[in-house]
Amino acid sequence: MYFSEKQTANTEFRVKIKKVLFRKKSKFQKIEIFESFDWGKVLALDSLFMVTEKDEFFYHESLVHPLLSSIKNPEKVLIIGGGDGGTLREVLKHPIKDIVQVEIDEEVVKACKKFFSWTSKVFKDKRVKLIFEDANIFIKKTKDKFDVIILDTSDPVGPAKVFYKREFYRNLRKILKKNGGISIQAESPIHHLKTIKNLYKILKEEFKSVLPYLSPMPTYPGGLWLYFFVFNKKVKSLKPLRIPEKTKYYNKDIHFAGFKMPEFLGRLFC
Amino acid sequence: MYFSEKQTANTEFRVKIKKVLFRKKSKFQKIEIFESFDWGKVLALDSLFMVTEKDEFFYHESLVHPLLSSIKNPEKVLIIGGGDGGTLREVLKHPIKDIVQVEIDEEVVKACKKFFSWTSKVFKDKRVKLIFEDANIFIKKTKDKFDVIILDTSDPVGPAKVFYKREFYRNLRKILKKNGGISIQAESPIHHLKTIKNLYKILKEEFKSVLPYLSPMPTYPGGLWLYFFVFNKKVKSLKPLRIPEKTKYYNKDIHFAGFKMPEFLGRLFC
Repeated sequence: MYFSEKQTANTEFRVKIKKVLFRKKSKFQKIEIFESFDWGKVLALDSLFMVTEKDEFFYHESLVHPLLSSIKNPEKVLIIGGGDGGTLREVLKHPIKDIVQVEIDEEVVKACKKFFSWTSKVFKDKRVKLIFEDANIFIKKTKDKFDVIILDTSDPVGPAKVFYKREFYRNLRKILKKNGGISIQAESPIHHLKTIKNLYKILKEEFKSVLPYLSPMPTYPGGLWLYFFVFNKKVKSLKPLRIPEKTKYYNKDIHFAGFKMPEFLGRLFC
Repeated sequence: MYFSEKQTANTEFRVKIKKVLFRKKSKFQKIEIFESFDWGKVLALDSLFMVTEKDEFFYHESLVHPLLSSIKNPEKVLIIGGGDGGTLREVLKHPIKDIVQVEIDEEVVKACKKFFSWTSKVFKDKRVKLIFEDANIFIKKTKDKFDVIILDTSDPVGPAKVFYKREFYRNLRKILKKNGGISIQAESPIHHLKTIKNLYKILKEEFKSVLPYLSPMPTYPGGLWLYFFVFNKKVKSLKPLRIPEKTKYYNKDIHFAGFKMPEFLGRLFC
């Protein structure tokens, strides 16, 4: 029995499954959790790999640490999406006072709590307030401002389309503190260059600085994933002020390495 | 119609094929060339992805440039394997006088000349001497010594097993010039950690320095590929003395970034 993701119309990634642990159609998406042979437990949303126990650390650590390590005295963090809790787990390795997480689909959190070792634990942390709501609504009405905002969102299809639109970032900018930063998962430089170019254009126009960051992600399309860190002020580079413990990917060397762009990508970001 | 590689016993990578361009069983292996939808033309040996037009540059540039750019006045280069000519194409971007390439399977070169744009051209270069022979035999009898030796070999199954054995490296060491270096493709840090550990142990014992290098490779297992650069003298780091032109991946920034190891890998190479 295989779980197969169509990474593009013509490229498929298939993993052999020991057991289907969970399957449910929520109001928003199809949620599946499998026990696989090679990748440990796998969370798939609408038949796309979201989390595997074996490689999720590349993604979650890259989305969180390069930015958060570089922000002086971060007090308040907003996580959008990320119902499995992996991003939150990494955020909690930093000295943060308050974390608000806005996830649209309560069923994802419920399912992950049953099967992933970290999910229950991180959402029990007293610093965390978990809200089940459409982030697009939340950011328009919140009175809070955040030091760091992390977009742990899905691909630009269905309800996640909004995360690739100008209006969303214009609203997000208003709830970012002056010295804060936003981390955005920005798709695959191998398969989604058009999406990346469009998003980069919007971000360059809406923010004062946009820094691209690159790291491996074996079970995502192309095996390579891009992130954008954006700021309301001029930022030339990010220096880590503290290195979190118990990471598997991130360290001081990797912090700096991820900002270095390959020739074919660097040209896009001039 | 799909071409499917079993990256492990339980993980498959499949690409949709427009056309089979070439298929032959040589004395050594099954050679196939496909026209694919996403990846351009694809060379597969024994049903494993070797070259795709879309992503081969990651591999060939990483195997060649970080080492070769750092060697002062390299005169003589030996390439082992690499019958498609991609490694040679990258070597020719450097000011080298003599290149010897030893490929076991003439049929691979013949097939690639028909279908890949660079193959014929690079093997016509007057600086290149192409020999069809088992590299294990060649290195025992050659009287030459080389500034740079590049192992563009297959996975450790079948005839390529020898490239993971101590005796091979002991012989290779003897034909390396005092200030020279060897570049070795060293498999996937996601799926082949045991092979990597065994090879690293041998290399550490046979050479004075071993530097690991990491870069993306979308169509290879895990999407991430490791290289070892080894030396007969103490080498702490490699600085590029010249940056080749017309690269798609390699540049000065990427040179340094690739030597930075993720936490889980760095621990292996202490």
